[in-house]
Amino acid sequence: MPVKYSLIKQCQLSGARLGSLETLHGRIETPAFMPVGTQGTVKAITTGDLEEMGTGLILSNCYHLFLRPGVEIIARHGGLHRFINWRGAILTDSGGFQVFSLGGLRKVNDDGVLFTSHIDGSTHFLTPERVARLQNIIAADIAMVLDQCPPYPAEKDVVAEAVVRTTKWAIRARQAHINDRQALFAIVQGGVFDDLRQLSAAALTEIGFDGYAIGGLSVGEPKELMYNSLEQTVPLLPAEKVRYLMGVGSPDALLEGVYRGVDIFDCVLPTRIARNGRVMTSQGYLPIRNSVFAADLSPLDSECHCSVCRNYSRAYIRHLLNAGEILGLRLTTYHNLYYLDQLMREIRKALKEERFTEYYCGMKPVLKKLYGGVDE
Amino acid sequence: MPVKYSLIKQCQLSGARLGSLETLHGRIETPAFMPVGTQGTVKAITTGDLEEMGTGLILSNCYHLFLRPGVEIIARHGGLHRFINWRGAILTDSGGFQVFSLGGLRKVNDDGVLFTSHIDGSTHFLTPERVARLQNIIAADIAMVLDQCPPYPAEKDVVAEAVVRTTKWAIRARQAHINDRQALFAIVQGGVFDDLRQLSAAALTEIGFDGYAIGGLSVGEPKELMYNSLEQTVPLLPAEKVRYLMGVGSPDALLEGVYRGVDIFDCVLPTRIARNGRVMTSQGYLPIRNSVFAADLSPLDSECHCSVCRNYSRAYIRHLLNAGEILGLRLTTYHNLYYLDQLMREIRKALKEERFTEYYCGMKPVLKKLYGGVDE
Repeated sequence: MPVKYSLIKQCQLSGARLGSLETLHGRIETPAFMPVGTQGTVKAITTGDLEEMGTGLILSNCYHLFLRPGVEIIARHGGLHRFINWRGAILTDSGGFQVFSLGGLRKVNDDGVLFTSHIDGSTHFLTPERVARLQNIIAADIAMVLDQCPPYPAEKDVVAEAVVRTTKWAIRARQAHINDRQALFAIVQGGVFDDLRQLSAAALTEIGFDGYAIGGLSVGEPKELMYNSLEQTVPLLPAEKVRYLMGVGSPDALLEGVYRGVDIFDCVLPTRIARNGRVMTSQGYLPIRNSVFAADLSPLDSECHCSVCRNYSRAYIRHLLNAGEILGLRLTTYHNLYYLDQLMREIRKALKEERFTEYYCGMKPVLKKLYGGVDE
Repeated sequence: MPVKYSLIKQCQLSGARLGSLETLHGRIETPAFMPVGTQGTVKAITTGDLEEMGTGLILSNCYHLFLRPGVEIIARHGGLHRFINWRGAILTDSGGFQVFSLGGLRKVNDDGVLFTSHIDGSTHFLTPERVARLQNIIAADIAMVLDQCPPYPAEKDVVAEAVVRTTKWAIRARQAHINDRQALFAIVQGGVFDDLRQLSAAALTEIGFDGYAIGGLSVGEPKELMYNSLEQTVPLLPAEKVRYLMGVGSPDALLEGVYRGVDIFDCVLPTRIARNGRVMTSQGYLPIRNSVFAADLSPLDSECHCSVCRNYSRAYIRHLLNAGEILGLRLTTYHNLYYLDQLMREIRKALKEERFTEYYCGMKPVLKKLYGGVDE
């Protein structure tokens, strides 16, 4: 099997679990957060930076790579790892979420989805088979099925239709997937409707995949609804496979996801807000471009041990961002990813030492207060 | 003395010389090229990158740092080294060149220069004394006097006036300079007029400085005129002090500068063109965004051993630049600086092994063919 999940420890008082995901490009301790490298690079930093902070698994995107540079070019390099110079593991999202975010620019039927490129206006038709094969060629460690992700809010019949279509497409993707060095994960849909989540999870686990993602959450619904839905969905997934909550990256939601049994997460949040000068700290978000930091000699977060916090002041980073210097984006991005990595390390440590619920009870109110609002 | 130049070897057949510049932040082997970090960072890369490629001395700019973030903030950090996290040596240009490039936005008289900030339209009056003291506070290893740099072409009387003013200002700067851990360099002006160069050099060496720059060249004149002017000027400078040719960074001009006895150089060329997707290689400039490189698996320069050329393909770097990814700018910038560093290393090696004129005769036609045109 191209990826193998091993459960190391199951928390007795919550769904949280410590595990390890063995891939052909290294072993990832879970729970873990995956930095997003949509176009074949985590924006503003290098793969050396990722190695330095201990990242083992990153996410890229089939939809974006298919449009630019095209999978043929990646294939010529022997796959995405060599193309982007990354020795760790990679998961490629199918691009279902991206295509369905295009709104008026796409048309969907049972066969697949017709859409217009956001880059050059060219028209493309993607089917579950084609997306599976494109990902086979891109050759990440983990591929995702093409799914239909409805927006929030959506009527139940719209969500139900998406569940049915995602299920049919998952069957076709499973059959089309032919890269035996690559895992294929399915995506549970169903929005915030528990019965639809059950239907989706039951159908997908029946087909059988190497791992299961929970999609259609973190798309604008209140966080409590997401947590409730997670509670309903996670127990329906097989314990021996890895569980991936898509699109979650705020510290409070990561903790809540882990509590409910999620193993891996991804989100553009830490990198995107970094480029807007918003950094994550033990005191919450810091709008580092603010003039109050103009002469502030302290690091972004005095409790952080990352190379940015060890070497640079808030005043310098603010100066770089205000002067339009690229280095500023690199420093804030590095720090935010390190911050989340550090959070996940602490969570894993608590699980290892069998004191996760204590940790959870202590951190939950703190993170909710600091990060519980609407994400940027 | 805060910087000490030692002549190691003088070429017997040309002006070229191997030397070393001892500073309080390390020893720099010369001839050397200084990457430009105008606003307190070499654009698109980190100080770690610079260390990795062996850079010992970078340039920053008093004018820019004075306007943003302001010298007070740098002082609070204990100086520019700590502010920007750089353990190597730094030279700050006075900003004379920048102020005189503002055209209609500034007014000059014998006392100083009045100008309007390009950032916020605020008005500032800079005198040689004030610029010296601002640099004392910024606390780079080397400060430059405020000079008046006329454009090219300029009438002889305009250039003569600039020489006289630059001389008077140099005297005032010398008296105002009070940081005994910082060297002060003067700037020879005189355009392409040999007699004015002689006047300027004689007056400045009479005053006595820790090093001498040649300014007012590489401002648009044909390269042959610059080389002639260099030939006239360099012999007028004391052999026991370091010689700095300002604004030169094309490979052919670096070689010609060394041949005529220059020790250090600076230019935005390698970093600026990198951000426009133009890279320096053993085959000349490569416009890496060009579609012919779309599926090119080879490195930027197959003869280069930099970490970019060892790890990334032309196709990937082209993809990054076309997709607007910041990493693309970092990779091209790193490579271009490495390319120049490598050239300077080769030059020093040839000097060390007493075969510089051979090296010069072999490389001159090559570099002239590849890089002899008008710089971008």
